[in-house]
Amino acid sequence: MRIVVIGSGTAGSNFALFARKLDRKAEIIVIGKEKTMQYSPCALPFVLSGKIPKLENIIVFPNEFYEKQKIQMMLDTEAKEIDRERKVVITDKGEVPYDKLILATGSKAFVPPIKGVESEGVFTLKTMEDVKKIQAYLEKRKPRKAVVIGAGLIGLEGAVAFRELGLEVLVVELLEHLLPTMLDKDIASIVQSHLEERGIEFKFGVAVSEILGNPVRAVKIGEEEIEADLVLVATGVRANVDLAQKAGLEVNRGIVVDEYLRTSDPDIYAIGDCAEVFDAVTGKRTLSQLGTTAVRMAKVAAENVFGKGVKFRPVFNTAITELFDLEIGTFGITQERASKEGIDVVVGKFKGSTKPEYYPGGKPIIVKLIFRKEDRRVIGAQIVGGERVWGRIMALSFAAQKGATVEDIAYGETAYAPPISPTIDPITVAAEMALRKFK
Amino acid sequence: MRIVVIGSGTAGSNFALFARKLDRKAEIIVIGKEKTMQYSPCALPFVLSGKIPKLENIIVFPNEFYEKQKIQMMLDTEAKEIDRERKVVITDKGEVPYDKLILATGSKAFVPPIKGVESEGVFTLKTMEDVKKIQAYLEKRKPRKAVVIGAGLIGLEGAVAFRELGLEVLVVELLEHLLPTMLDKDIASIVQSHLEERGIEFKFGVAVSEILGNPVRAVKIGEEEIEADLVLVATGVRANVDLAQKAGLEVNRGIVVDEYLRTSDPDIYAIGDCAEVFDAVTGKRTLSQLGTTAVRMAKVAAENVFGKGVKFRPVFNTAITELFDLEIGTFGITQERASKEGIDVVVGKFKGSTKPEYYPGGKPIIVKLIFRKEDRRVIGAQIVGGERVWGRIMALSFAAQKGATVEDIAYGETAYAPPISPTIDPITVAAEMALRKFK
Repeated sequence: MRIVVIGSGTAGSNFALFARKLDRKAEIIVIGKEKTMQYSPCALPFVLSGKIPKLENIIVFPNEFYEKQKIQMMLDTEAKEIDRERKVVITDKGEVPYDKLILATGSKAFVPPIKGVESEGVFTLKTMEDVKKIQAYLEKRKPRKAVVIGAGLIGLEGAVAFRELGLEVLVVELLEHLLPTMLDKDIASIVQSHLEERGIEFKFGVAVSEILGNPVRAVKIGEEEIEADLVLVATGVRANVDLAQKAGLEVNRGIVVDEYLRTSDPDIYAIGDCAEVFDAVTGKRTLSQLGTTAVRMAKVAAENVFGKGVKFRPVFNTAITELFDLEIGTFGITQERASKEGIDVVVGKFKGSTKPEYYPGGKPIIVKLIFRKEDRRVIGAQIVGGERVWGRIMALSFAAQKGATVEDIAYGETAYAPPISPTIDPITVAAEMALRKFK
Repeated sequence: MRIVVIGSGTAGSNFALFARKLDRKAEIIVIGKEKTMQYSPCALPFVLSGKIPKLENIIVFPNEFYEKQKIQMMLDTEAKEIDRERKVVITDKGEVPYDKLILATGSKAFVPPIKGVESEGVFTLKTMEDVKKIQAYLEKRKPRKAVVIGAGLIGLEGAVAFRELGLEVLVVELLEHLLPTMLDKDIASIVQSHLEERGIEFKFGVAVSEILGNPVRAVKIGEEEIEADLVLVATGVRANVDLAQKAGLEVNRGIVVDEYLRTSDPDIYAIGDCAEVFDAVTGKRTLSQLGTTAVRMAKVAAENVFGKGVKFRPVFNTAITELFDLEIGTFGITQERASKEGIDVVVGKFKGSTKPEYYPGGKPIIVKLIFRKEDRRVIGAQIVGGERVWGRIMALSFAAQKGATVEDIAYGETAYAPPISPTIDPITVAAEMALRKFK
């Protein structure tokens, strides 16, 4: 069998490795635009801040590693077209026939059509190339004032990196609060205060209408001109669907796949940022676009190419980040989004400490849990705190993935030791708060 | 209603507080031998090491707090007998009538009948009084060499505390490895190496036959005399069941209760260390004797006293500790125990890092997962590592509590961010290892 993968990012590279594990003989060919196989795009802000010393570090494996696994790489190569009838991929370096084709074309940074967005000093933060450009600019121009457009995950991680490098930072967000798809306003405002205390400023509900100067010297918001000698555009990503669309595959915001990750052509699969998955809460198709989702889709698609018939499970989009010394963890639906979707919810919220009161060094932690009224299941969580947020979001997410109800959390067993966590965990109390409202 | 609680420890005190939350008017009377309400016995080793600055800190609430909640306290009082016919508790300070009685009599340190065990310098580590005595002895005698009998949780936490205070420490364990009920030998040996590197010595498969000197100057193991000027006896605890037994209640190793935590007398409940619960893996009655279990039993018993009919769920004994800079988390059954119980298991084990390779500061972590062959469910986990063990054991335990299978873990969503965790989590890989053996 000849398996061709278009895309050498997280999804494509992991697919190739999983497929090789499952079959030693299959021909596996990866066509990639970049010169290397996968690197970790989530790591880019941490390269920028200097926490990861070298950009090259984030390349997960060197090309030789894939060669040893007998994965053929056609790097620096662009797939131009898919001829589904002849089962060939047409690239700028010739035709590549396939038995099974995997689309792992990823996503690209979305850049809104703001006047001046092409000027020197305006960047996105999606690829290694982006980081190289920013680093060269930092070196050359020594900017002092950064404006970040967009208060999503990448925007905030970028803002923190710039702040850690000593720049003044203003974040501008069109919506009403930061991390608008991950957090509700009450929780977002806690994160906001934390970032403001460390010198990051915010403007919400407004848009940058123009970027002035080349190199950039200011941004325009309404009538106001705000000084800026570096602009980061972090207004989300768009799935790369052109190739799929041209090939006549069913495409929505992402490439449409069934639960086995097959596109409308049974010999073509789509995985990673370019493909839609099912949302575990709403049941609707959605773009997950998390690294973990890409890897998990790669695994399932590899199994299905070899006929295992594994269903890709709907996603909760469990996510975590660290901004300065605050951990932020979420999964599932926010209260705001639930209201838009017409889902009745019961919420439990509790502010506690990460350690027992008597143990020195405990840090504040806020837990917000969202339960569906109809079936009492936990369908969302937002946790913000100074430590051990990750463990709590992991626990709640695993519980949610198994359909846990408010009772399951409120009466659930937690692990306690004085240096680590309180006897009655904040997640337990938050669930108890919700449970009382159910009764 | 007049509710009488015997025992002012974790279970008794929490019961009183939960009961008060449920009913503002009920008479709630706590009879306790000690002079305070609950303190945290798990915190005692950390008081000893000095990590918790003052012994008094570990008293969870002052007596005034309970007074404000209108909880009547008969402290410094011993319950002598229960007259079930007249529904009265007979104490050394008079009779106390009850409508519902809660036995929260706790457990006591088990001291094996070793010759010399009564000598000066030989201690247990179960109560605040124990810590006071040890601290006075440390002050007065300035011991240099401690022998700890028993390599369970308290033994090891005590050993670490003594080591941190600068003593030489030898731990003697009758069984073949440390934490014998929580870990298998392969995982225990990792913990052992960690402790040995920090100067704690071990002897396994041997017993102390005699304690020599008064004050103690040595212990005898076989023919060998080993110098020791402090001995900690940490050979487990025994449920306090005398009162229940005298009252004619059904008693096994602990007081027998049904799933509503009622004893064989429907007006008497038993909670905490003195009562047996159901083991989630074997289905058998067991003594859990964890602080978290005590609190959870207290909550359920309080609800049931007021007729809510809540079942206490079988326990996985999810537990965590920190020994120097190693976190150790477990739940469920070990492979060794499963073999004794005749349960066929499939094991997945993986050694990885707590962070992605490219991110500085990752620490080794070892995950061992135990699945039941019959239904593919996760029934045990042992994790040892330099950080973020707690989160993984919490996640796996919550999954296990919802009946998660090997597929649920292997295909489960985890939360990833470069400074926090790898894209493919060690628990995912461990589950994949097991899954391959299933197939």
